[in-house]
Amino acid sequence: MFYIEGPRIISEAFDAQWEFNQVFYCEDLINDLYSKQLLEKILDTGCEGYAVDKQVFSSFSIKEGPKGLAAILQPKTFSLEHVDGKSGIWVGLDRIQDPGNLGSIMRTIDAVGGSGIILIDQCTDPFDIAAIRGSMGAIFTIKIIKTDHSSFLRLITENKILIIGTSDMAAADYQTVDYNEDMILLMGSEREGLSAALMEGCDTLVRIPMVGKSDSLNLAVATSICLYEIFNQNRIKES
Amino acid sequence: MFYIEGPRIISEAFDAQWEFNQVFYCEDLINDLYSKQLLEKILDTGCEGYAVDKQVFSSFSIKEGPKGLAAILQPKTFSLEHVDGKSGIWVGLDRIQDPGNLGSIMRTIDAVGGSGIILIDQCTDPFDIAAIRGSMGAIFTIKIIKTDHSSFLRLITENKILIIGTSDMAAADYQTVDYNEDMILLMGSEREGLSAALMEGCDTLVRIPMVGKSDSLNLAVATSICLYEIFNQNRIKES
Repeated sequence: MFYIEGPRIISEAFDAQWEFNQVFYCEDLINDLYSKQLLEKILDTGCEGYAVDKQVFSSFSIKEGPKGLAAILQPKTFSLEHVDGKSGIWVGLDRIQDPGNLGSIMRTIDAVGGSGIILIDQCTDPFDIAAIRGSMGAIFTIKIIKTDHSSFLRLITENKILIIGTSDMAAADYQTVDYNEDMILLMGSEREGLSAALMEGCDTLVRIPMVGKSDSLNLAVATSICLYEIFNQNRIKES
Repeated sequence: MFYIEGPRIISEAFDAQWEFNQVFYCEDLINDLYSKQLLEKILDTGCEGYAVDKQVFSSFSIKEGPKGLAAILQPKTFSLEHVDGKSGIWVGLDRIQDPGNLGSIMRTIDAVGGSGIILIDQCTDPFDIAAIRGSMGAIFTIKIIKTDHSSFLRLITENKILIIGTSDMAAADYQTVDYNEDMILLMGSEREGLSAALMEGCDTLVRIPMVGKSDSLNLAVATSICLYEIFNQNRIKES
């Protein structure tokens, strides 16, 4: 289960029909009609509600200026079968460690109309507070899949899905490759990049050119630059 | 003054000829020749050195596995005169709040061969530990300028520098605009975007298209997507 707080994110979760386990509210802190109506709608679904006073609310609040509305939700992840080669753009993340990076990536996937993320092997928790905060609500609109590299590689082989990975050793410039509307962009961990097994599973490996001192970009930045290249190519094809 | 730790970042600062105020080292923790030689080179410059034992080093260390080398450095910022319309690509950041975002942006500026960042009005500290960590050494290779919006706007007017800002309300798609080799990309704060005064100072406003639920991207991501568009256009022109 995971915790969210504030009317904006709670309404995003509600609108996306996520399952609410409990809602906590403080009537002294709720001072807008929107939050009151949102609370009523959540309680109407039969969700357990707990009215608490200011002191109690502040004791668990993670916000600087608490607005009196918080909730506990049931995490929702999807099975690997959702990636069938006809389901749009996915990002596969190999052992990503930073929840802030994960949140930013979810936000970009949402922005480019992608389907979701596939978390491969031991990744940071997508329902970590920093990931949820960084996703700015995208966590409720995209699909999250958790798997291991063997199952992932089996899926690609069976479904013949185009898979493009990134590596600073790759020969191909990321802008010279043709991307499909249905594919997986595969990104490695912050420290180690893609594992050898996953790299072998890629149809193509691309690199983002760099001319500075550093040999890599922040992972959320690198993922987003590739996602926008895919998005831009596809929107040019469509227009 | 600011603190850095570990042989990698210390050697980056040393190679970029930053001024070391003090170096702290623990001989029991230093177990590679590279660190020993680096320490000697730093001490040879006349920098104050403090040998400390394991316990003392661990008491101020910010690393999980401390490697026995830390330093206090003098921050270095540049004056606005360095931006003269003939000095490459700069990023102007209006009231950026998150040091992690700032660090990632520095890393991307380095990657695209840009000149530096201009921090406008009240921004997060570029020498904050999270900014330094996020920059992965780029903080030592790019130029950092601190200014206020009046001085910044005066500079642009006097020097007739091309300045392109971003806004989700802009009419122009960021891919349809011609960027120069000498220009400023202007980005607004995480919460509020660009101020009205700065927006008015822009030659052109562009937006990054988005098709999802969210109406914005992470600031470091958005900045990097624009920086790579500028970089890609310029490298196509050159080739």
